[in-house]
Amino acid sequence: MVSSPILNCHYFFVGQMDLNVSVVVPAAGCGERMNTSTPKQFCKIRGKTIISYTIEAFLRIPWLQNVIITTSPEGHRTLCDLYKGQPRVKIIAGGSTRHRSILNGITALTQVQPDCDIVVIHDGVRPLIEEDLLMNVAMAAHKHGAAGVVRPLVSTVVAVDADGFLVESLPRTEYRASEMPQAFRYQVIQMAYQQCSDYDLDYGTECLHLAQKYAGSKVKLLDGPDYLWKLTYKKDLYAFEGVLKESRSFSVCLIGCDEVPLLFDFIRQSLSSDGIKCSEVLPSAISAVIIHLGASDAPDVWLEKCDIIQSETDLQCVICLLTVPDGVAHKELHNSFTHHVKRLKSVTKKNAFGVIIQGLELKNLDEILRHLIKENSAVLSGQIFSISEI
Amino acid sequence: MVSSPILNCHYFFVGQMDLNVSVVVPAAGCGERMNTSTPKQFCKIRGKTIISYTIEAFLRIPWLQNVIITTSPEGHRTLCDLYKGQPRVKIIAGGSTRHRSILNGITALTQVQPDCDIVVIHDGVRPLIEEDLLMNVAMAAHKHGAAGVVRPLVSTVVAVDADGFLVESLPRTEYRASEMPQAFRYQVIQMAYQQCSDYDLDYGTECLHLAQKYAGSKVKLLDGPDYLWKLTYKKDLYAFEGVLKESRSFSVCLIGCDEVPLLFDFIRQSLSSDGIKCSEVLPSAISAVIIHLGASDAPDVWLEKCDIIQSETDLQCVICLLTVPDGVAHKELHNSFTHHVKRLKSVTKKNAFGVIIQGLELKNLDEILRHLIKENSAVLSGQIFSISEI
Repeated sequence: MVSSPILNCHYFFVGQMDLNVSVVVPAAGCGERMNTSTPKQFCKIRGKTIISYTIEAFLRIPWLQNVIITTSPEGHRTLCDLYKGQPRVKIIAGGSTRHRSILNGITALTQVQPDCDIVVIHDGVRPLIEEDLLMNVAMAAHKHGAAGVVRPLVSTVVAVDADGFLVESLPRTEYRASEMPQAFRYQVIQMAYQQCSDYDLDYGTECLHLAQKYAGSKVKLLDGPDYLWKLTYKKDLYAFEGVLKESRSFSVCLIGCDEVPLLFDFIRQSLSSDGIKCSEVLPSAISAVIIHLGASDAPDVWLEKCDIIQSETDLQCVICLLTVPDGVAHKELHNSFTHHVKRLKSVTKKNAFGVIIQGLELKNLDEILRHLIKENSAVLSGQIFSISEI
Repeated sequence: MVSSPILNCHYFFVGQMDLNVSVVVPAAGCGERMNTSTPKQFCKIRGKTIISYTIEAFLRIPWLQNVIITTSPEGHRTLCDLYKGQPRVKIIAGGSTRHRSILNGITALTQVQPDCDIVVIHDGVRPLIEEDLLMNVAMAAHKHGAAGVVRPLVSTVVAVDADGFLVESLPRTEYRASEMPQAFRYQVIQMAYQQCSDYDLDYGTECLHLAQKYAGSKVKLLDGPDYLWKLTYKKDLYAFEGVLKESRSFSVCLIGCDEVPLLFDFIRQSLSSDGIKCSEVLPSAISAVIIHLGASDAPDVWLEKCDIIQSETDLQCVICLLTVPDGVAHKELHNSFTHHVKRLKSVTKKNAFGVIIQGLELKNLDEILRHLIKENSAVLSGQIFSISEI
């Protein structure tokens, strides 16, 4: 089996067969365990909601035909605005429980895609998705009827009686935690939801259970990686942010840095060795633009160099480097630079940082750049950092 | 029941009875699920190992008599060095499995404290411990024989057959995840480990199960908070760091700031409203010292003010504030200040940051201070931040 290398190719091959695959994402929950007023899927990490991370991960998979999100009325407005240009994303009303939301999603799918072969169910609060795993789960569902992903148990699971006493503790090795994504043949998930009881719809949690019980399907379970976990508590938001920072999906664009070859090579090498992609043209989405400004440049040159970034909307931050080859920046230069960085911050509405490199001392420039790119802290926006021996 | 308000009072009262309570912490594991070369309990967060957070949380509880840590030979050396001045901490050799490590701990406890009433078992990688919860678990163990803490299941638990197919999915509401701490009457845990099989010692994971099966004890399960989770994967380290930053256990000492009453009031108010404790004397452990330096001070005054912090070992960072009431810092002043901050960084071996406040513009000083205190970033150590309208 190969994944199609052609973008926007809306199926994938299993042996000789083409499969239509769509995903239903229940995202109507209120996230009461998070202890935040915002439902957890709408909590923001680095300026983007969890549900957007999830949706955008699915949109990067070319063979997924529809991404159906079931959400609350408030979420509906927000997501419709965000994804109105994406024909694959359908935002529909959620139900009062998880299963009722999924049922709404499957009903909607029947209308928009009656020839769907495989339905993937995934949680809105599991934003880390990989194409390979999704394909394996979809393929297993095609073969067996239903499939899911499991993880080893971290804690022993115990049964408790009504008075709070231990009844039994389950042998950890015989059980697994059921995670997402799960996938189903369209007929299997449809039958499961048609046949199941109101009690299931109101109190059940596990789609695989419905497929087994009401559609008589075999359910294949695949071992999954640990990043599949469900963001449930506030601590999970911190964990997700840490994983994002570590995930090496940063890319920067270097503008004017080749004016100082030593600097240019140093930046390219040190950022690349940390997995940060460097280019010299502005792609559509980038973490940072690093612009070199010379100490002897006329003021218009600084403005001109920085003009390029004003129309760039997906950009996270701008870092201006001022090299002062002959030693220490004099006061007027320092002030102009500070002024320029603050102006840039206000004009571009992005975080802007300045770095003064004195006497071409590159010392910990790499650490500072990585820190600014990865942390991208709004609090430090407008500040000037200095690389020098002093 | 009340906890003794007297520090170093080594028992607590249950009704009319005084109880001797000690804790055994298995910390000999290799942490293979963390994907790091260092065992997870020895991974460092903000300069301190996870196991040290755990040990120090126990040391803050005055009525715990002994804190017995079972660890690997490498861990043994590190921990013995760190806690040699703490008579309550005993570092002993771990076994080849979790249960064998706990057994070693209980055997050691028999020697150092034959009159122990309650043994608490806790994981080295669960560093967030609260006295109240520990007391409730110990009390429940005293009453019933054994007690533990449980949490609702986040994922549905499923049984899997040898071919990887779903056998059954457990109704989530009838089961709980068993967490730590757990507590046992001394006789119960002793009997459990005397009677259990080699198979239990080699493959078992749950002490409560041994107490129920081999000592015939009832096991009371208490609902616990979500911060009890076991740090298992790398993402859990990020989560722990996030919780630490949020936990509002920061305290700062303000030195010389009262020379500028406006500044002093602003800092006290803005840090206090964020839960950061402010004092004007150096206590034994603090997050940061904030030292005010005047623009017109003679150089010795700066040195003298900063001398106080050189002997302070638990300190996390030093923040120097330079106020320039009449406008912009001239070049020599800026350079002297930069030099002073870098010298301080090198002399104290702490992170040192400088903040220049121009024209008594306090604007986002509060944000910057909170950021420096809470992030305490080594990469930014030695940098000068500026608060100004420019």
